[in-house]
Amino acid sequence: MNMLRHKVLVLHGPNLDLLGERETGIYGRDSLENINAGIIRCAQDLGLDCEVHQSNSEGAIIDLLHSARGRFDGVVINAAAYTHYSIAIRDAIAAIRIPCIEVHMSNVYAREEFRHTSVIAPVCAGSISGFGKNSYMLAIYGLKDLL
Amino acid sequence: MNMLRHKVLVLHGPNLDLLGERETGIYGRDSLENINAGIIRCAQDLGLDCEVHQSNSEGAIIDLLHSARGRFDGVVINAAAYTHYSIAIRDAIAAIRIPCIEVHMSNVYAREEFRHTSVIAPVCAGSISGFGKNSYMLAIYGLKDLL
Amino acid sequence: MNMLRHKVLVLHGPNLDLLGERETGIYGRDSLENINAGIIRCAQDLGLDCEVHQSNSEGAIIDLLHSARGRFDGVVINAAAYTHYSIAIRDAIAAIRIPCIEVHMSNVYAREEFRHTSVIAPVCAGSISGFGKNSYMLAIYGLKDLL
Amino acid sequence: MNMLRHKVLVLHGPNLDLLGERETGIYGRDSLENINAGIIRCAQDLGLDCEVHQSNSEGAIIDLLHSARGRFDGVVINAAAYTHYSIAIRDAIAAIRIPCIEVHMSNVYAREEFRHTSVIAPVCAGSISGFGKNSYMLAIYGLKDLL
Amino acid sequence: MNMLRHKVLVLHGPNLDLLGERETGIYGRDSLENINAGIIRCAQDLGLDCEVHQSNSEGAIIDLLHSARGRFDGVVINAAAYTHYSIAIRDAIAAIRIPCIEVHMSNVYAREEFRHTSVIAPVCAGSISGFGKNSYMLAIYGLKDLL
Amino acid sequence: MNMLRHKVLVLHGPNLDLLGERETGIYGRDSLENINAGIIRCAQDLGLDCEVHQSNSEGAIIDLLHSARGRFDGVVINAAAYTHYSIAIRDAIAAIRIPCIEVHMSNVYAREEFRHTSVIAPVCAGSISGFGKNSYMLAIYGLKDLL
Amino acid sequence: MNMLRHKVLVLHGPNLDLLGERETGIYGRDSLENINAGIIRCAQDLGLDCEVHQSNSEGAIIDLLHSARGRFDGVVINAAAYTHYSIAIRDAIAAIRIPCIEVHMSNVYAREEFRHTSVIAPVCAGSISGFGKNSYMLAIYGLKDLL
Amino acid sequence: MNMLRHKVLVLHGPNLDLLGERETGIYGRDSLENINAGIIRCAQDLGLDCEVHQSNSEGAIIDLLHSARGRFDGVVINAAAYTHYSIAIRDAIAAIRIPCIEVHMSNVYAREEFRHTSVIAPVCAGSISGFGKNSYMLAIYGLKDLL
Amino acid sequence: MNMLRHKVLVLHGPNLDLLGERETGIYGRDSLENINAGIIRCAQDLGLDCEVHQSNSEGAIIDLLHSARGRFDGVVINAAAYTHYSIAIRDAIAAIRIPCIEVHMSNVYAREEFRHTSVIAPVCAGSISGFGKNSYMLAIYGLKDLL
Amino acid sequence: MNMLRHKVLVLHGPNLDLLGERETGIYGRDSLENINAGIIRCAQDLGLDCEVHQSNSEGAIIDLLHSARGRFDGVVINAAAYTHYSIAIRDAIAAIRIPCIEVHMSNVYAREEFRHTSVIAPVCAGSISGFGKNSYMLAIYGLKDLL
Amino acid sequence: MNMLRHKVLVLHGPNLDLLGERETGIYGRDSLENINAGIIRCAQDLGLDCEVHQSNSEGAIIDLLHSARGRFDGVVINAAAYTHYSIAIRDAIAAIRIPCIEVHMSNVYAREEFRHTSVIAPVCAGSISGFGKNSYMLAIYGLKDLL
Amino acid sequence: MNMLRHKVLVLHGPNLDLLGERETGIYGRDSLENINAGIIRCAQDLGLDCEVHQSNSEGAIIDLLHSARGRFDGVVINAAAYTHYSIAIRDAIAAIRIPCIEVHMSNVYAREEFRHTSVIAPVCAGSISGFGKNSYMLAIYGLKDLL
Repeated sequence: MNMLRHKVLVLHGPNLDLLGERETGIYGRDSLENINAGIIRCAQDLGLDCEVHQSNSEGAIIDLLHSARGRFDGVVINAAAYTHYSIAIRDAIAAIRIPCIEVHMSNVYAREEFRHTSVIAPVCAGSISGFGKNSYMLAIYGLKDLL
Repeated sequence: MNMLRHKVLVLHGPNLDLLGERETGIYGRDSLENINAGIIRCAQDLGLDCEVHQSNSEGAIIDLLHSARGRFDGVVINAAAYTHYSIAIRDAIAAIRIPCIEVHMSNVYAREEFRHTSVIAPVCAGSISGFGKNSYMLAIYGLKDLL
Repeated sequence: MNMLRHKVLVLHGPNLDLLGERETGIYGRDSLENINAGIIRCAQDLGLDCEVHQSNSEGAIIDLLHSARGRFDGVVINAAAYTHYSIAIRDAIAAIRIPCIEVHMSNVYAREEFRHTSVIAPVCAGSISGFGKNSYMLAIYGLKDLL
Repeated sequence: MNMLRHKVLVLHGPNLDLLGERETGIYGRDSLENINAGIIRCAQDLGLDCEVHQSNSEGAIIDLLHSARGRFDGVVINAAAYTHYSIAIRDAIAAIRIPCIEVHMSNVYAREEFRHTSVIAPVCAGSISGFGKNSYMLAIYGLKDLL
Repeated sequence: MNMLRHKVLVLHGPNLDLLGERETGIYGRDSLENINAGIIRCAQDLGLDCEVHQSNSEGAIIDLLHSARGRFDGVVINAAAYTHYSIAIRDAIAAIRIPCIEVHMSNVYAREEFRHTSVIAPVCAGSISGFGKNSYMLAIYGLKDLL
Repeated sequence: MNMLRHKVLVLHGPNLDLLGERETGIYGRDSLENINAGIIRCAQDLGLDCEVHQSNSEGAIIDLLHSARGRFDGVVINAAAYTHYSIAIRDAIAAIRIPCIEVHMSNVYAREEFRHTSVIAPVCAGSISGFGKNSYMLAIYGLKDLL
Repeated sequence: MNMLRHKVLVLHGPNLDLLGERETGIYGRDSLENINAGIIRCAQDLGLDCEVHQSNSEGAIIDLLHSARGRFDGVVINAAAYTHYSIAIRDAIAAIRIPCIEVHMSNVYAREEFRHTSVIAPVCAGSISGFGKNSYMLAIYGLKDLL
Repeated sequence: MNMLRHKVLVLHGPNLDLLGERETGIYGRDSLENINAGIIRCAQDLGLDCEVHQSNSEGAIIDLLHSARGRFDGVVINAAAYTHYSIAIRDAIAAIRIPCIEVHMSNVYAREEFRHTSVIAPVCAGSISGFGKNSYMLAIYGLKDLL
Repeated sequence: MNMLRHKVLVLHGPNLDLLGERETGIYGRDSLENINAGIIRCAQDLGLDCEVHQSNSEGAIIDLLHSARGRFDGVVINAAAYTHYSIAIRDAIAAIRIPCIEVHMSNVYAREEFRHTSVIAPVCAGSISGFGKNSYMLAIYGLKDLL
Repeated sequence: MNMLRHKVLVLHGPNLDLLGERETGIYGRDSLENINAGIIRCAQDLGLDCEVHQSNSEGAIIDLLHSARGRFDGVVINAAAYTHYSIAIRDAIAAIRIPCIEVHMSNVYAREEFRHTSVIAPVCAGSISGFGKNSYMLAIYGLKDLL
Repeated sequence: MNMLRHKVLVLHGPNLDLLGERETGIYGRDSLENINAGIIRCAQDLGLDCEVHQSNSEGAIIDLLHSARGRFDGVVINAAAYTHYSIAIRDAIAAIRIPCIEVHMSNVYAREEFRHTSVIAPVCAGSISGFGKNSYMLAIYGLKDLL
Repeated sequence: MNMLRHKVLVLHGPNLDLLGERETGIYGRDSLENINAGIIRCAQDLGLDCEVHQSNSEGAIIDLLHSARGRFDGVVINAAAYTHYSIAIRDAIAAIRIPCIEVHMSNVYAREEFRHTSVIAPVCAGSISGFGKNSYMLAIYGLKDLL
């Protein structure tokens, strides 16, 4: 019965709406729409309900995280550029007390120095980077075992 | 007569809408609603008009600060996480030329290293931290004397 | 014919809506409205179409940059305070692949230390600072030659 | 009955004996004597007993803090220059286990870089700066609520 | 036929032989032996051959990485403490040109500052941390898709 | 009448004598001679007299700056490598009290880290970089408006 | 004969007068008086004369060190908080040319970052930390062998 | 009866096999063999069993530390150069949960800057340096009292 | 007449009471008494009254500086070790508004790194170092011309 | 006669066993075997005996350095990745008191920042980098003249 | 007889040719010519021969220092901006082995941060700053006593 | 035939004209003249033409490097103090596109910290230090093989 299924919120941060068009050498040619379809299919295969959102706005991402309280059992978040400086998103993740997995499609450690620091990692349960769109799928697998 | 009363704008930054639910060990069990009621009562006791807003959005906080020009005589702001990196909010405070008091409920200096730096403090008139919800009340007392 | 004219998007970042009122010693006494009129006139003289926007919101600026794809041939951006920390705006500029000129009215290098760092400069084509409202005009001249 | 009244120790650190004569642009024109009279009056109004001391000596300030044990219920301390490097005073505050409020008359964050760091803040209950002599009064208000 | 199956080398670095006995609050109560059995089972389920080694010696880990050339199609490595300073292991990973996944059982970003830096991450294909023993399984899933 | 025309000194710093031969990917294929012809033409079109010099010697550049006193109304300087460490040139610019525009042909912010710092920028009126040889022309336009 | 016995000066720095009352989790429950009795007994057992002082004042500690010249053959000093910044005490130790042993009761390296630096260690003969009150005894043993 | 005697493992790190031959100005003229004889004698005098090992290999030292579990009650370790960077040895010490004393023969704080940092000190019970070969003896005395 | 003569206060900081005994290679063999005699003679030759004090206590030096107000026209101070960290002495010098000359006998820039920073230099009128006891004489010459 | 010939030990550090296979763009296509043959031939031409070893193990390299005492007159060492952090190898080089030449095939200064620091250079007699396999030959020439 | 008189070389570095015209608030209104006349007169009064040079060129200053060998007994140098980065001038001062006094007219420690560092101070005998043109005279007095 | 012989330019930077007189403990007793004779002889033995220059002037060294274009096949440069900060010389080396070998007579890594950084090394082909005058000879050998 649906009531008993775990629910996962997947959040894409700034500029990820351009996936498939932007720096395809790094991010691949799949559009965000396609990737979202894959994420949802993957979640369903694992018996999870899944909702996906993208926003370029730090405040909107915080609002989405807050709204997850009581409605979702886990969060997968690719905070993109906000990863590196948004203490506000960090505080939101810490505040909602829902296990959260940090995801990056590219291997951020092979890119510019400033992308090696994540201010949200310390308050996430786990972190996955470098597997392209599969990073999201692995996060959902991993999250499922935590729930 | 009301026309002659000083008016104070109180701004709560990101994640403060979760007060009473989030990290109660640090922030106490009062909801933001209760705290706001206390703030307004305190202002009234001092003969001040008071308006209170909360937002998770950096841009919205800047808009609120701008809108204070000509309408408020002083600002009390708990910029929460934005305290530590929002140069945009700093510039807004400097631009509006209304005395502004920085407030933190917790003693930010007893927390993580990155919370020890405030980019808005240099453009505020004063700064108060560590008194829980009373930090707001003390800010209003202090502001009153500055006006 | 208009179809063939190059189109330029001019973006003003946070607190620039207060131009003419804020720190006039640094920024001069022209209102943003006046400056925009001058920018548009200057663009027209050079045979360019020009659209101008201001926003205090980081997310909204990113949305505006994204919307420039396919509609504009160049961007002039005064990211103001976001210049110094918005990796999200940096990523947006890099992602849209439209030549972008960074503009500052004041000489940022003669101000506080933290204003000497620009996280968007490395992904812009050029950078101009210190000429007051003329910084925008010079950027449009310079951009025209790049197009 | 006096026995039941809370007792507060107010400590002024180095160079504050010159208040009213030194850098009056920053500190105002009140002498320390006048300020102390105001502090004591303010404490009495709140039903608190209050004792005030000033010393230029780090060791003497530590001795005064030690002597507060068993005799005072709270401490208000303006450690002045020692704020920025006296780990010995920090350890004294931590050792005596009496709630302590850090006070600065000026907004230290608007002054030299080295005044932005407080080694005693992490062991104080709260911190107040920028309200001139009222900083002391606000500290006493705030302390009263903590007791 | 076995010849056509992909082969994966799993390497455990220093102190991981004590798993199940050491800091069980961080690493859980499973012994390395049990975890290895799970890893091999997981690999088999995915149609992969898998070999597992542990060593406390930096040189031995480099030797194992070198020996992987021509024998394995992918590597999963938990370099443990060596993660943070062994440029020699980094160079070995870069030299063998076999896709390598960095794994950590704990969320290293929630631990001491010095554990936030990985000198091997920039030469790995992907990185996974925080899922306990499941970090290894996720790495094998992720690696399979890369092969 | 010529006497009333503004006069501009353009200074090229070290290694710019190799323009057109050196790193043409960064600096383009125009020789310094050609660029100088363009600069002079551009100045004349704007009704300005213009004198151009190049030197590889820090001391000679300072001498040239000193000699500008009483003879020129503005300076355009591409200090090249000296930009990043010549406090002596900085002091010369500050000392002569003639408005000075800093110019770079390449976008220095997209190059090595050490090229992101300019010790002369704080004493210049404005700064322009990234427009190739047009950087000089834009500087002359901008300077004209300042005079 | 007493004349021939080596004499040792033991100095306790700031806040050590509160031993047994302050942070007993770190420092144990023995009072300074008890510890001093143990130190003297230990010295006597080794055939050494021993004098013990405590002061919260940096200047007084320097005076005590100076007075040791010609009167003592060795010094054991727990400079407590002054360890981390008192260059004046460092210079006093260097000036008196008497072998000095640095002592800490707690393992300072397991505490705050700022306690990991000792400005006096480079001019001491040896350093001992982490053995509680026994740190003093070990220092006396060690000193005896040096004399 | 031997069964009841405490057992101590003494570990010498890299290059200590050259004691008596290497930099005798710093380390003295005793060979490692002689020093070991003294250590064992000292331990016996205190009623302790003692085993001594030296290795130049980081991995071997970790193996030795692991093998101490269940066989020794305390460890005395002079990690020599590994002191300053071997997080792997640090993790081994933390993992085995046997009280460990850090020892250095020379006063490392009077030598090069990079020798002032110990990555193992935070997980050791105590630390002793500067007493030549007696550093080991003092460590054994100190360890005995901890057991 | 004595009333009209300028008066100079000379202050010696910590450890200078040991002059002639301490590190004579750096400071020479003159005792403080002899140096003081020379200072007073030199001042008299220049028609100045002169008072000399030495203290090892930071607080006492501040008290002496405060007491100079209204009694002295200039101060010569060798703050010795306090030079490098006593912000309290810095504030005292700034507060008393009497021209102050910083003096060092040795060339502090040829000694340890930490002696290259002076926190009092920015509030002194001038600074002299490296001339042994003559540093004081030169300071008095220099001060005389400032008065 | 062989007895009188100087003997040179050549040591290759970690990952150099993969020469000719690894990053040939940087290191060239010669195998370590070929390079060793060239080194030995070169040494013989200069009348030197030569022994060559490679190891991936820090401890083994230290052992090899120790074993050089009394058997070799000079050492040529390419410590590869260990160059940048192995203080243990540094101490071994300093301890054996045999002139040692540091060698790198690539120009390490044109590679990643972390490769610009050598912890062994300060204790080597000379350093050579950037000449490919010839770096070894030049080191042997240079060493011969030192012997 | 002139042969026996000591000879002093006074060197003025970059931009000091503008003295009296440049930043007179900092440097006063005397021209370099006047100051030089005063320097020479002062030297003569002390029985010293004196030669004075100014150059804006680092290389020329080094040449002048080299030429001092065998011809001068002491050097007074105001290296101006070169003070802060010219290691070449530092090496020249160290190489010529003639006592050299560093001079600054302004108190460099009260100016920009980058003026607080002198790369030449460690190789000078003494250093004087803040006395305007008298800094030179004091240097000559001080130098005389050193000769 | 001479036309076919490779030509090498050898450049000595600042203060090297004093070789044999300056700090002979570091640089040896050979005069620059003698060393140059040896360099030319060595080049001739290898069938190379060789020209040698010394200058104390940064600008002159850049001019010499520029003049090498079309006339020399390789450059050997001992930039001495300029090594550590002359980005202008670095740019000249990069611009002329002739293989350049960096040479130092002393082991710069065993000297002051600031001598450990070379701003020219990243644009040189190779680097040699520590072999006294032989460093030049080794550079010519090495250069020959590169040509």
